[in-house]
Amino acid sequence: MAFLDHIDACNRHDLNRFRPFIVGGRQVGWVRGDIAWHLEEYEAVFAVTPDAVHLQRHLSEPEARSQAVDQVCRALHAKWQTPPLRGERYRVARTWGEEPVMTMDRGVVSLFGVRAFGVHVNGFVRDGERLKLWVAKRAPERAVAPGKLDNLIAGGQPAHLSLRDNLIKEAAEEADVPAALAQTARPVGVISYCVEDQWGLKPDVMFCYDLELPPDFTPRNTDGEVESFALMEVDEVMARIRDTQDFKANVNLVILDFLIRHGVLCPDNEPDYAAIAHGLKRGW
Amino acid sequence: MAFLDHIDACNRHDLNRFRPFIVGGRQVGWVRGDIAWHLEEYEAVFAVTPDAVHLQRHLSEPEARSQAVDQVCRALHAKWQTPPLRGERYRVARTWGEEPVMTMDRGVVSLFGVRAFGVHVNGFVRDGERLKLWVAKRAPERAVAPGKLDNLIAGGQPAHLSLRDNLIKEAAEEADVPAALAQTARPVGVISYCVEDQWGLKPDVMFCYDLELPPDFTPRNTDGEVESFALMEVDEVMARIRDTQDFKANVNLVILDFLIRHGVLCPDNEPDYAAIAHGLKRGW
Repeated sequence: MAFLDHIDACNRHDLNRFRPFIVGGRQVGWVRGDIAWHLEEYEAVFAVTPDAVHLQRHLSEPEARSQAVDQVCRALHAKWQTPPLRGERYRVARTWGEEPVMTMDRGVVSLFGVRAFGVHVNGFVRDGERLKLWVAKRAPERAVAPGKLDNLIAGGQPAHLSLRDNLIKEAAEEADVPAALAQTARPVGVISYCVEDQWGLKPDVMFCYDLELPPDFTPRNTDGEVESFALMEVDEVMARIRDTQDFKANVNLVILDFLIRHGVLCPDNEPDYAAIAHGLKRGW
Repeated sequence: MAFLDHIDACNRHDLNRFRPFIVGGRQVGWVRGDIAWHLEEYEAVFAVTPDAVHLQRHLSEPEARSQAVDQVCRALHAKWQTPPLRGERYRVARTWGEEPVMTMDRGVVSLFGVRAFGVHVNGFVRDGERLKLWVAKRAPERAVAPGKLDNLIAGGQPAHLSLRDNLIKEAAEEADVPAALAQTARPVGVISYCVEDQWGLKPDVMFCYDLELPPDFTPRNTDGEVESFALMEVDEVMARIRDTQDFKANVNLVILDFLIRHGVLCPDNEPDYAAIAHGLKRGW
């Protein structure tokens, strides 16, 4: 294992297997060939060509687009066991700052290869000059990455919230962090990657935050998604990232960014330093 | 002006005008067509084809390569007024961690489009929750960017030094920062860009550092390269970057990285946030 292996693992994809997904004349995602084939049947909603999957032009309003796609996805799930809707809406847009062309259920964004946004928070404690990181262990029954190590707080970005409000909501649910404390989290940058999952493509953008916690604060999970928390020496975290796959795949990237920004990973000691720093932005 | 304009300005180039520069069978740079034409004359050193410029294979050792290229560059300068040698050696390698294939004089790295490395240090002071940045004003007689605003400390990376030792050397020369204080500078990441200059291509990689300074420290230039220093509110620095071209072109990028890492630029307020963060790594 090496640090760069985690970056490679989060960027495995072959766009030759995908067709652009186009809404209102603009590409906002990618659809895998076999999924495009399933979509041909729903020609009131999709115009499928050998080169692209278009949302039909008569669907010109965000609300109508969102409802039509939901309906197809429910039918696909019933017929082909594609993922079910999960009841949480994501924005569909190329960038976070752009006006979304529609929303889409969280469960099916990879079917359409739509960019998903999220917030990740490294919770840390200072011990003199040394840093410690609060690390969550995901519950064993979670659908994604059961039992893997995770950031203190992380969550996908619902359509209707600001990033800051989402962070405060997730902080309460996942780690029982009071709003006033969560409010002190500092935005520190953004990471991106692009990986294939079972159904399609995940071109993800993660907004990263640092949250310095008082030494007497202990996180406590309130929504059942975390089995336990541990406060780890930053050097131990770095060694486990380098040598193991204990962390959820994309969390390795968020922590590598932390290690670089805090001078734990150093350019005079790590030959891959610049490649790692650049690799954290590969999926753009 | 917008933040992204500075990133665009540091990434203007057209590789169609360049040919790969190949040493020992590996590409380590780019030579512009008209320079390649000048090099044809020196066939003991260069093998120029329509597709590439090769260093002749009989030059198999780093020292012999370096001397042969220096000699050609002196002749080119005499005949065509290309830049003179400056007496400072840079490593020639694709990445910092790689074994260099030769060294090259600082004055001519853009003629061969070789990746140049440097260190840039943001010197800052805490004023409660607010940050202030020490900003240098370059001397009016400097060859590059006279009178422009600059980081507290910055310098190209000589072949024979570690990044840390170069930082300490530059800190003493440019800002009279004692070694013990310079030693506390924290590596915080890396920035890259790729821009054409008058003679060729600059694919630059800048290792960035944060140096927190005590409130009673005042920098003082010792090598004549800086006219004056000013301690600026971080919000003023951000506004001058957004609205003016007062800063040396690549320094805008180093400070944008600082503003992102310290939460001064925020993703909920800046629509281009993710594009800026990614733009700081474009020249890789």
